[in-house]
This record gives sequence, structure tokens and C-alpha cells, in this order.
Amino acid sequence: MFGFCVLASSANADETLTRARALFKALPESAQEASQLDPIDQNRIDLGRALYFDPRLSASGTHSCNSCHNLALGGDDNRADSVGHGWQSAPRNAPSILNSVFNEARFWDGTVANLERRAMGPVRTGVELSNTVDQIERTIGSMPQYVDWFAAAFPNEAGPVSFENTARAIEAFKSTLITPSRFDSYLNGEEGALSPEEIEGLALFIDKGCAVCHNGINFGGHDYYPFGVFEDPDADAQAIGYRARFVVTETVVDDRVFRAAPLRNVALTAPYFHAGSVWELEAAVGIMADTQLGERMTDLEVSKITAFLKSLTGTFIPLEYPLLPVETSTTPRPSEEVLPY
Amino acid sequence: MFGFCVLASSANADETLTRARALFKALPESAQEASQLDPIDQNRIDLGRALYFDPRLSASGTHSCNSCHNLALGGDDNRADSVGHGWQSAPRNAPSILNSVFNEARFWDGTVANLERRAMGPVRTGVELSNTVDQIERTIGSMPQYVDWFAAAFPNEAGPVSFENTARAIEAFKSTLITPSRFDSYLNGEEGALSPEEIEGLALFIDKGCAVCHNGINFGGHDYYPFGVFEDPDADAQAIGYRARFVVTETVVDDRVFRAAPLRNVALTAPYFHAGSVWELEAAVGIMADTQLGERMTDLEVSKITAFLKSLTGTFIPLEYPLLPVETSTTPRPSEEVLPY
Repeated sequence: MFGFCVLASSANADETLTRARALFKALPESAQEASQLDPIDQNRIDLGRALYFDPRLSASGTHSCNSCHNLALGGDDNRADSVGHGWQSAPRNAPSILNSVFNEARFWDGTVANLERRAMGPVRTGVELSNTVDQIERTIGSMPQYVDWFAAAFPNEAGPVSFENTARAIEAFKSTLITPSRFDSYLNGEEGALSPEEIEGLALFIDKGCAVCHNGINFGGHDYYPFGVFEDPDADAQAIGYRARFVVTETVVDDRVFRAAPLRNVALTAPYFHAGSVWELEAAVGIMADTQLGERMTDLEVSKITAFLKSLTGTFIPLEYPLLPVETSTTPRPSEEVLPY
Repeated sequence: MFGFCVLASSANADETLTRARALFKALPESAQEASQLDPIDQNRIDLGRALYFDPRLSASGTHSCNSCHNLALGGDDNRADSVGHGWQSAPRNAPSILNSVFNEARFWDGTVANLERRAMGPVRTGVELSNTVDQIERTIGSMPQYVDWFAAAFPNEAGPVSFENTARAIEAFKSTLITPSRFDSYLNGEEGALSPEEIEGLALFIDKGCAVCHNGINFGGHDYYPFGVFEDPDADAQAIGYRARFVVTETVVDDRVFRAAPLRNVALTAPYFHAGSVWELEAAVGIMADTQLGERMTDLEVSKITAFLKSLTGTFIPLEYPLLPVETSTTPRPSEEVLPY
């Protein structure tokens, strides 16, 4: 009887792997493979790393990309809302930068406008870095070391120092921020990379319907869904007043529509949901079951799904903290001016 | 005649080296040699590095030691005043952390109270990190990875997780932040490490009296002097209203007394003076000559001294950006509460 159970369990595990392979995708091995951009090179990645950590991309000289998407903390800031220029709050919970190169893949159309919007939107947002295109170009252009780095990273361009290339360099760096996890080893066929409990959690994640929205390479991050399909989230989780995707579409039905959050490294990126209203992963799983699936899960089911989600915590290879170019007499000085949101 | 001039110049250069050796001191080779603390080990240094970069040492979860003493920017923040909790301004220009292990050497008396004051004062200051001893200990104690790291860094202690040990670990890390420069090579006898102009600048630095206050291993950083010995600085440079060392001594004559700034890496750490009022190194040298030495220097003299000061820019070995411990359900959440200054 015992032998039969093990056999059955093993058959189920095989079936789970087969189903998982149809829904999810393992991370690629290299940054180049990860990147949907032009061929990238180390000069561009190194430049992007410097820019990513450079607080002089903000008007005040205090906020860098890394301030809210902190690579020491799983690529986010572990706050409900982020603190930006003038101690203003950004209106959404900061998502992790890790593996985010894959998030907007289907919206990626290769145009400059989109690239700028993705990498450099926060730089120009009043409540975030509150800077301007002109000032960023003047800041970078005032430091000979940056000018050299841009020339090396964009060798065939007449005027390599530009806002657009700043975005492109940061994108190149971002494409290196990939965190393969035990789940990827499992998907790639390594037996035993997941524990039996985690495999059961994965099966539940598929069976219960979580994977309808949270699928693909990042377990989400590629489409928008209403928050509260079956049941309204409580007021705290919902953060009433947030207008969600309505802001983009100006369609009333989108008033509570948000991107399905990518779930890689989710165990590192509390608090959860668009408003960062929930700090416990188990609680977030329970709320999702209630509101999105219309099903009250048992504690054991929540516990297994949570165990599976923790297997998505990846390995991040520590990187070198950059030494940034020295300012000169023409570098714009820190400004307290607050730009409109 | 030309040969004679070279000979004379060379003799002057030798004399300058001899005089420099009497006034200044080269940096040590190792962190242990630099440290005036107990023997330090790599576990303690690594722990200190993590704590140095951890924004959860601040009440808001946004500010780390590195926010204002940024190792990518010469160990400071390139702002006149720093931005702290609630976007408040710290009342002084942030000094560089680089080589700062040597700064207070003469005040170091080995007591815990002093260690806490040095490394952890900003953590508890309302306008800086605005945190409390209790909350810091609870924050660290809530993360098993930190508990393990503290146990490894302080192996013979019953309760290694403490505010005091947090300070000791940061001190251990700080003692590794040493930046040998071309000047050190020169002082150690390497001919040609400084250019003739830099050596002339060094001779002027000594002859004009700069080295009366700016001497020792850090060219300053070890004693206090009035700002405005011969002449009042103009209102901007003076930043009237700052009470200077009066705050400590409560002695009226100390109302305009400040620490002589250490000058290593000074070319990286604009703006200058206690209020960060001056952005150009040449201008700062000129103001110092006027106010502290009662002497209007020629542009050429200022230029040579500035060239010499730039030879104090050291080599900083890039370090690994840490991966910080993951929060748990008992980790104190970010707080907006502002503690008194």
C-alpha cells in the first residue's frame, strides 16, 4: 500500500511537471538571451549599472533607481508606498526590478517612446526623481568620465550622451538582473529541486486557477485584470481611491484593473498588492483566493501554495557597487523644485 | 644655468618631502592596521557592510548610512545639506566616510558610549535616520540571517544582536574604507608620484600655514578651530546661525569653531565647509587663505595648492553590494514618526 502511494505520488509529480511546462517558462541563462534589445555589451551594462545607482539622476541628488528598486532588498523597497522627491509618496507599491526585463514583453514595440516611458518615466515624475530630460543630459554631459563611458557604450553614435541612451543603458543593465530559482531547475528537469510539499503547492496553484493570470516566465507581469473578480477586496487591500488602469485607458470598467503582479522573488518583496497593504504572503494568497477565485482555501492549501511561491526566490549574483564620475563646475546643483506629477 | 635650476628644484623637492614627512603620515596598508579597535575579522566587516547599506536601520526604511555617506560618490552626498527623515535637512554638510576611521583618533577613549555616539548618532537623530535603539535591535533580531551573521561576527557573546555590536560592526567595516593616494606613494619615497606642480603646491600648503590645522594622516579631522581667524567669512560661507562647537562646549568663544575638515579626497566631496556653501575647490582654498591665514593668495598659488589637493584623491577598491536579510512577520514596519532632533 505504501509502495503504491509513492508510485501514485510520483506519477502525479510527473503530471504536475508536464502541466507546469505548458504554463510557465524557465529563465534564460544569459543577459543577452534575456534581452529583447539590440546586442548588448559589457560597456553598456556597466554604464547602466552606474546610472542605476546614481542619485544625480534625481533633481535633489538623493534618489537613484536603486532607492526604490533596491538590489539589496529583492529589487524593491519593502515599503507600502515609496518615498520620492520632497518626501512625497509614489501612488503604487514599487515592483521589483528583478527579472522585470520580461514583464512588458508583449507591449514592447521597439520604439523610443516606449523605451523612454519604461526606463525613464520615474526619473521625470514629480513625486519620484522629479527631474527633466534637459537637466539629466546636462548632468551627464558635465562629467568627462560619463561622456567617455557613453562613447564606449554607444560607439557608433555622433552624440552618445542623451536621455534615450541613458534609458538604453539602464535597460541593458536591467536585462542582467535575472534570478534563476529552484523552480527553474525543476522545470529544466532536475529531479528533487522542489520538495514534495512545493510540488503539491504548484499543483494547487494550477488547479485552483492562480495560473490563469500568474503564468509565463514571470508568473504574471504581462496582462491586466480586475482586482476583485468574485468578491471585493476589503477597503485596506483595495486602497479605495486608486484609479488603477483607468488612468491609462480612461474606461470606467478599468477603474479597478491592475497588472497581475509577477511572482518571482515574491517572498522578498512584501508588502503586497498595488497599495502594499498586506505584509504576509500567506494573507495575500488567501485574499487572492477569495477575491479572484471566489474560493476560501484551507490553511493547508494556503500553506502549500506559499511554500511553492517561496521556491521562486532566485539566486542573485552580487554585483560591484559602482564608483561614480566626479562632478564638475558645470554639473547642475541639487534642486528642491517639485515638478508636477 | 639650466642644470643648476634643475638641481635647485630637485633640492627643494627633497626638502619639501622631508618637511611633509614631519607633518603628514601615509595611510596604513591594511584595515587591521587602520583600526584602533579589537582585532577585526572578515565576518564582522561583512556584517558591517550589510548594516551600512541597510535602509531598515532608519525609521522610514529609506535611509541607510550610505544615503548620505555614499561610497559611489567619494563617501558623501555632494549636497550642501543632507536629506533625512521626512525630507528634513541635517544641519551640517555630510563629511566623507572614507578614511574617517582616523578622524577622531585622539578622542577615542575605548568606551562604549563614545563608540555608540560615533557610529550610531545619526541613526538616532530625528532629522537623519530617526530610529530608536530598541527598534533597531528588534529589526535586526527579527531576521534570522542577521542573527546568524551577528553570532558569527561576535562569536563569544551570549547576546550578540545589540545596538552596541551594530556600531562595532559598522566601525569594523569603516576601518576598511581607506584610500591610498599618489601622495602616500610620494611620502613613502616613490619619486615622481607627484608632479613638479603638485610638489610646489605641497610646499605652498606648508609655507602658507594651511598645514597648521590640516596635518596628520588625514590633513585635518583631529582638532577644532574658529572659522574666521583673520577675517570673517562672508555670510554665505559662514552660514550664520550655525552654532558650531558651542553646541558641545556651551562656551561663547566656540560659537564659530569647527573641526578642521580632513582633506583626503577633497576633490570628490564638494560642496565645501560646514554649510556646504562653496562648490569650487579653488574658491574654497581662496576663502581659507583670506579668513584663516589673512593672506590673499595669487591665482597661481591657489591653482598649485588645488593641484596638490587633487593628489590626495585616493584609490577606492570597489566593493560588493550586499544582499540583505529578508524581513519576517516580526520586523518593525516603516514609520513616518519624526523623533526630536
